[in-house]
Amino acid sequence: MSAQNGNTAILLMHCPDQTGLVAAVTDFLHKNNGNIISLDQYVDREAMRFFMRVEWELEGFAIPEEKIDDYFGTLVGQKFGMEWQLHFTSRRPRMAIFVSKMSHCLYDILQRCISGEWPADILMIISNHENLRYIAERFEIPFEVFSINTENKAEQEQKQIELLHSLDVDFIVLARYMQILSDDFVAAFPNRIINIHHSFLPAFKGAKPYHSAYNRGVKVIGATSHYVTADLDEGPIIEQDVRRISHKDSVKDLIRIGKDLEKVVLARAIWLEIQHKILPYKNKTVVFD
Amino acid sequence: MSAQNGNTAILLMHCPDQTGLVAAVTDFLHKNNGNIISLDQYVDREAMRFFMRVEWELEGFAIPEEKIDDYFGTLVGQKFGMEWQLHFTSRRPRMAIFVSKMSHCLYDILQRCISGEWPADILMIISNHENLRYIAERFEIPFEVFSINTENKAEQEQKQIELLHSLDVDFIVLARYMQILSDDFVAAFPNRIINIHHSFLPAFKGAKPYHSAYNRGVKVIGATSHYVTADLDEGPIIEQDVRRISHKDSVKDLIRIGKDLEKVVLARAIWLEIQHKILPYKNKTVVFD
Amino acid sequence: MSAQNGNTAILLMHCPDQTGLVAAVTDFLHKNNGNIISLDQYVDREAMRFFMRVEWELEGFAIPEEKIDDYFGTLVGQKFGMEWQLHFTSRRPRMAIFVSKMSHCLYDILQRCISGEWPADILMIISNHENLRYIAERFEIPFEVFSINTENKAEQEQKQIELLHSLDVDFIVLARYMQILSDDFVAAFPNRIINIHHSFLPAFKGAKPYHSAYNRGVKVIGATSHYVTADLDEGPIIEQDVRRISHKDSVKDLIRIGKDLEKVVLARAIWLEIQHKILPYKNKTVVFD
Amino acid sequence: MSAQNGNTAILLMHCPDQTGLVAAVTDFLHKNNGNIISLDQYVDREAMRFFMRVEWELEGFAIPEEKIDDYFGTLVGQKFGMEWQLHFTSRRPRMAIFVSKMSHCLYDILQRCISGEWPADILMIISNHENLRYIAERFEIPFEVFSINTENKAEQEQKQIELLHSLDVDFIVLARYMQILSDDFVAAFPNRIINIHHSFLPAFKGAKPYHSAYNRGVKVIGATSHYVTADLDEGPIIEQDVRRISHKDSVKDLIRIGKDLEKVVLARAIWLEIQHKILPYKNKTVVFD
Repeated sequence: MSAQNGNTAILLMHCPDQTGLVAAVTDFLHKNNGNIISLDQYVDREAMRFFMRVEWELEGFAIPEEKIDDYFGTLVGQKFGMEWQLHFTSRRPRMAIFVSKMSHCLYDILQRCISGEWPADILMIISNHENLRYIAERFEIPFEVFSINTENKAEQEQKQIELLHSLDVDFIVLARYMQILSDDFVAAFPNRIINIHHSFLPAFKGAKPYHSAYNRGVKVIGATSHYVTADLDEGPIIEQDVRRISHKDSVKDLIRIGKDLEKVVLARAIWLEIQHKILPYKNKTVVFD
Repeated sequence: MSAQNGNTAILLMHCPDQTGLVAAVTDFLHKNNGNIISLDQYVDREAMRFFMRVEWELEGFAIPEEKIDDYFGTLVGQKFGMEWQLHFTSRRPRMAIFVSKMSHCLYDILQRCISGEWPADILMIISNHENLRYIAERFEIPFEVFSINTENKAEQEQKQIELLHSLDVDFIVLARYMQILSDDFVAAFPNRIINIHHSFLPAFKGAKPYHSAYNRGVKVIGATSHYVTADLDEGPIIEQDVRRISHKDSVKDLIRIGKDLEKVVLARAIWLEIQHKILPYKNKTVVFD
Repeated sequence: MSAQNGNTAILLMHCPDQTGLVAAVTDFLHKNNGNIISLDQYVDREAMRFFMRVEWELEGFAIPEEKIDDYFGTLVGQKFGMEWQLHFTSRRPRMAIFVSKMSHCLYDILQRCISGEWPADILMIISNHENLRYIAERFEIPFEVFSINTENKAEQEQKQIELLHSLDVDFIVLARYMQILSDDFVAAFPNRIINIHHSFLPAFKGAKPYHSAYNRGVKVIGATSHYVTADLDEGPIIEQDVRRISHKDSVKDLIRIGKDLEKVVLARAIWLEIQHKILPYKNKTVVFD
Repeated sequence: MSAQNGNTAILLMHCPDQTGLVAAVTDFLHKNNGNIISLDQYVDREAMRFFMRVEWELEGFAIPEEKIDDYFGTLVGQKFGMEWQLHFTSRRPRMAIFVSKMSHCLYDILQRCISGEWPADILMIISNHENLRYIAERFEIPFEVFSINTENKAEQEQKQIELLHSLDVDFIVLARYMQILSDDFVAAFPNRIINIHHSFLPAFKGAKPYHSAYNRGVKVIGATSHYVTADLDEGPIIEQDVRRISHKDSVKDLIRIGKDLEKVVLARAIWLEIQHKILPYKNKTVVFD
């Protein structure tokens, strides 16, 4: 159902489970001439919590765009104790990419944006090293280096936050950025920073997961994309995938094979984000695909 | 959402796409105190057709079970030109299994039913050979042999149809049954016969797919579960899966590796059928998982 | 290359890496008229260790079966500081299966042996519970219950060891046996006990891995077969596989989906063991497939 | 075993199966002080044909590089009726890439070469369209357009062949080149042209495989890399992989998902080619990984 053309609105919502939720939302849309394009709901029976994503056409919808949030809140959201997000496909998602020295994820993301595979814009590439500047220049994307050490970290991150706010960025992608973000930085972009970790979490958290995988003698390796939280590699998981390896594969082979996993697992997470299909709740995600 | 306890009703429906469909269904349920447990919908934008599966609790529902079909038809279904099926989880699905000489799928299905993994009953095992009678006897399931040849085929199949009707069977599983069913037999159980074919269709249709896969030198082999239609191996696909092979694998190896695929791909299709999650339309399936 | 018919011998060996190893072994076989059916070697460049599996036809081989071990040792093995195992395909592998209350792996193994898929014998099923006795009886396999508690554990395990020795068992399969084996028991069968753990190790070691996987919100679950060592869930990994899940899957769903992984991952490990294709070294395995 | 540093030689060979083959080759290397780094052999028991890949260190090897082919032929190869190829890792593989309008495979290959993941050189990008010239310019790779129509095809291909020969290219990659090569062109580079086809062959040969997959309602899609032969999409398969899809995925979705498969399946084939690990024989490949 990714094939619609015109402008649409997307509501992502969650609240305590109770009867009449779906009817209330669909009734609200139907009464105002909103043609539903897709509707996906899920009830977490342990947490007794209701989750929903609904997308409808704006053409002919009785409520003007800028008033939908207010009307929905008053007529539906507050009544059921909902938390919700409202998105419009008319806004092209704006992302910033953080990199260090490895180029494989960066090229992959750039290619997808430039070729039109993703309807999204890369506003800025930020790095703690100069190494990949030449790629940014080739693709004519602004590139800023913030070299980080223990003394200047707080200050440099503050500058990054200001820059990202000034660019009106929707989300941040850590494309193998080898620097741990402070809690303050993370708090400035809650569930808006997507990381790629080069293992199937929760196995092999932290540094050098391919070395650990090699030493443990596993027969599959993986990669995990997740939202960044204050706890390292503990944020809500968006997507994971794995590939078989064998005893023949050296650490160098794992790194090479793993790069292909990292690229595709990160790309799938960004694609879900662009479509507003991820609803994080506590340390998990509901992914409406 | 498979965790509900009490009795529920399930509606599977499809109709030309039009506005207000979800609202109409959810409104019907809500007004009659039906608590929706899960709702899944899909619009095929090429065929401009709407598909939906909704499950709700019967406890407290205002309309008695035996009248739901009538009320839904009058108040919703006919208005929108819907085709629909109504199922109740209080009815344990009843299946018959057709086998020939290979036992792997049969054991697998028996184990799932006996251990309680599947809330379903096997009423009868039917075969064109005596070979697997000892398994049926061990598991105390009725076993009938109908040996088929070109002369007696129509007559034998007629007897099978009568037997299956007398057993009030919901669906039939061809667990590596090596005999082509006639169009008449298939017509007696439309979209109610599930076959497992030992290739990733549409590759390697017909007989000896592992030999063909070996000869072509493919690097993955697969299995496909599908509803049986009058066109051999052309019915709506329910589920498929594959496994990597290499040049080292002989035809014998492919057969051995393939058996594991056949078991699991067939089992997933039956599990979807038991939960009423498959909606066939033309030569495809909508699978609400 | 699993298609040979006559009797063959298999040598599994490892030693410090040095020049001339392959030539020495192939020369030994060639000079004695041994026709090599398959040869697989591997050098671990970190450990600087050489691993090899070679299989040859016994028909026409100049050295009688009972003297091969001695001759190989004198002429090749000792010279290079090798550790080696010699197997003959004329010996049908003899296994014992340990179970508790879950039947899915047990049925799967039984089916493979009975149908002739595996050329191996099940000598005995051992359990700490009576629950699955009826299955053993149906398949006419001896079934012994050893109920274990903290007081009698050492004594009961001693009886099990004696029983297993008296049965001349080649290896032991823990088919979801929910009881931790003591170090003494493990030491009695070094690298001869194959366990199936219901997670992709090293993630979710120990009890209730599906609950942990659910709570962590992972998007893939897995299973791992490994040799049992004194460290729980830390033994050399033989085989692993995974399957995608989603937020919709409850713990009950994970358990159901996981059973299919457990069956197939355990079966692949046993199949490798039957063919003498696994060479454990320290905490890893070299798998010659 | 891809981790060696110094220069090595690689022999790929096949011949009728007979005793003493492995011993003859290893003896030849051992007697001339060749330290074997890896050895892989395989016997096709249907075709009764022997295949082998052996790699050894050149340092200290008694026979000079330029004489190895001659010596091996005289002392081993001709005796057993072998066909063989000899490669040296000191020669960096030289490739040409053919593209049309889609950029995803091209970027992927460029990134791998530039970042040093692959020790190989791209000599030239050839296209039948101007569209991707800007990418070649950004990466400073020569780009030539040969527009093809029914009249000029033979002539244009002749020019391409001359150009490729003048560049001393080892192999050609068709990175979604949407133009069928003539038999003459293919004959000029036997088993040296690698294509990526966007389906799991033999399913969905020819044009528009994603449309066909959509219309058939398959639940997995795939991609296949293969050597190009005179029969369209019938050449020896090198690598295949698949990904699950659902009824929700439109043709547009399949194209997007498929691109990720195409990139990785083509890249794996090129990586095998660079390492001289593929031995084509008739319409199949032996892949020594």
